[in-house]
Amino acid sequence: MGEADPISSFDRLAANVQATEDLNFQWCVARVPVGNVRSGDFEWTAHPIPEPREGEVLLKTLYLSLAPVMRAYMQGKPAAGETPLTPGDVIHGRGVAQVTKSRHPNWKEGEVVQGQIGWQTWKASAMTPAEKMFRMQPNGLSAALGLGILGMTGLSAYAGYFACGEPKRQDKMLLSGAAGGVGSIVAQLAAKIVESDVVGIAGGAEKCAFVRSLGCSGAIDYLAGDIAAAIAPARPDGIDLYFDNVGGETLAAALEHLRARARIVLCGSISEYARETPFALANYTRLRATDSSMRGFFVYNHLGLWDEAMEAMSGWIRDGRLVAHFDIIEGFENMPKALAALYSGGNIGKQICRVRGEPEGWQ
Amino acid sequence: MGEADPISSFDRLAANVQATEDLNFQWCVARVPVGNVRSGDFEWTAHPIPEPREGEVLLKTLYLSLAPVMRAYMQGKPAAGETPLTPGDVIHGRGVAQVTKSRHPNWKEGEVVQGQIGWQTWKASAMTPAEKMFRMQPNGLSAALGLGILGMTGLSAYAGYFACGEPKRQDKMLLSGAAGGVGSIVAQLAAKIVESDVVGIAGGAEKCAFVRSLGCSGAIDYLAGDIAAAIAPARPDGIDLYFDNVGGETLAAALEHLRARARIVLCGSISEYARETPFALANYTRLRATDSSMRGFFVYNHLGLWDEAMEAMSGWIRDGRLVAHFDIIEGFENMPKALAALYSGGNIGKQICRVRGEPEGWQ
Repeated sequence: MGEADPISSFDRLAANVQATEDLNFQWCVARVPVGNVRSGDFEWTAHPIPEPREGEVLLKTLYLSLAPVMRAYMQGKPAAGETPLTPGDVIHGRGVAQVTKSRHPNWKEGEVVQGQIGWQTWKASAMTPAEKMFRMQPNGLSAALGLGILGMTGLSAYAGYFACGEPKRQDKMLLSGAAGGVGSIVAQLAAKIVESDVVGIAGGAEKCAFVRSLGCSGAIDYLAGDIAAAIAPARPDGIDLYFDNVGGETLAAALEHLRARARIVLCGSISEYARETPFALANYTRLRATDSSMRGFFVYNHLGLWDEAMEAMSGWIRDGRLVAHFDIIEGFENMPKALAALYSGGNIGKQICRVRGEPEGWQ
Repeated sequence: MGEADPISSFDRLAANVQATEDLNFQWCVARVPVGNVRSGDFEWTAHPIPEPREGEVLLKTLYLSLAPVMRAYMQGKPAAGETPLTPGDVIHGRGVAQVTKSRHPNWKEGEVVQGQIGWQTWKASAMTPAEKMFRMQPNGLSAALGLGILGMTGLSAYAGYFACGEPKRQDKMLLSGAAGGVGSIVAQLAAKIVESDVVGIAGGAEKCAFVRSLGCSGAIDYLAGDIAAAIAPARPDGIDLYFDNVGGETLAAALEHLRARARIVLCGSISEYARETPFALANYTRLRATDSSMRGFFVYNHLGLWDEAMEAMSGWIRDGRLVAHFDIIEGFENMPKALAALYSGGNIGKQICRVRGEPEGWQ
């Protein structure tokens, strides 16, 4: 498996380019990543700002999201319902953007949207269903929340945990990727809203401290030793609910510690994205021995919960029970670096890139 | 992986022994099977008929069940909730037996029971909960049904299909092991009771014809070619419900053809019992892509459905909608042969051994 280039190589990549307002800059697939992404996998291109046609709007990118699935996009896999990419294509990615021109009947200048923008600084869009665009309302909070707790990340946490996990207050829960975008929200939902007992898995002492600060009763540092050996002492009574953001060896280890009629939610498989050959789960029959279930979760199948989730989450944010945690990198030129850092476990909370920052005149 | 000895070697094994009424004959573990069972893995022993102590009954074995899990027992695995075996131990197995002496307050001479008897012709039993003994009532049908459709096999089919599979009439269903003990019942429940569309997987033309006779709209012969290639043409719209009795490659193949929000019931893993190293499921992430679930099923966790299942099943037998299918081998001395045949796919319907046959004076 290819290792990621050192971060310094991504810094050099960024130093050679700079986004300005007068052109549409894009990060494209230069070559198909093998294993971890490398700086040579990305190509910087510049184009005229697109002119919206009838029925389209011109969007100015404010924030962009980084997500583990993006390497799968770059590898041409038909992941997360997006069209497969080939070298030369703009990389897929959700963002927050502001309408600067509108020739679309339902959108007007100044409105703010979150949706499929791609790794680019401007986009002409017909606001098609495939782009999954959601209008944002000013609420006194940063528009960046639309890429986290008040966006797909938040919906993943909310629907994955409540709709698929069927949580109970007495759950002995295990949560992987607990310091990540989805995980840091699920940790709070479980510990603070449902008030169940959560042990979070994260990499390193700093992240483990963060995970405890979210309300977890315990934290497992997967960098400190064998994950399979660490679960039993951390969850001596076994696991009722395992919320899985990583897949692979961690999933296999969790399967060995299920209580009767346990539930597993497969929400993410970040460990899989880094592998050339998929991890093979040799102990799936543990589901039979324990009468347990493993349920796959794909957020785009749960868009029907959008309004419910956003209303609940924004209420919990307002009353202080949920806190949005971001890891923000500055500057569109640093998108490749931010993506590479995801796979090495660099981020705490949802990783986003500030392209231009907050919308203008939005209230 | 060790191949099974040819059936002739099991015939020679049986020819050397004969069960009589005056001794308790047992089949014991001679050595731990490696891969498929071989004739040398079994040891025939003879003992005095046990004398029941206070609180015990003496049971005379009438029928014994053969089940794929038995090799796991012989290998010392803690399978299906039974105590792990070592060489010298009597092999576990459920049977139908008649009480011939009773020093137990709740059981009287002549009553018929199904439960954990073991591979032996007599048993002294305290009728403990661990033996999971169920009193049988005469109903004009063969007592052998207690090892099939009116026993744990039937409960597995009923609870696995109805409670775990959550079937719907519009299901496009796939069923592996469709000619086997559990599978041949599930096929009928799905095709005749729920009236959904079932494609069954079985080995060979004869079994495929049998599977169609159960009501399946199609049958896949896994011996005729690559199972992965055979599913798409047989289930062109994909799979809503996969009821899995075999695990391994067939499960992996089915995962590639799931419709959105499909369900998989892991009821049996006969292909796993034959393997020295477990099959590793490399495409479990298909559950995420399709928002599907995979639920393990262990019949002993569903004993609470016993009365409901038996009442429903016996009703459906009486009104002709369900038919019990047995593959009966004659004679206790042929137990090893019957077990070996299971793993080579020899049986049609539930495999049992007639030790003495119907109970005496039972009505």
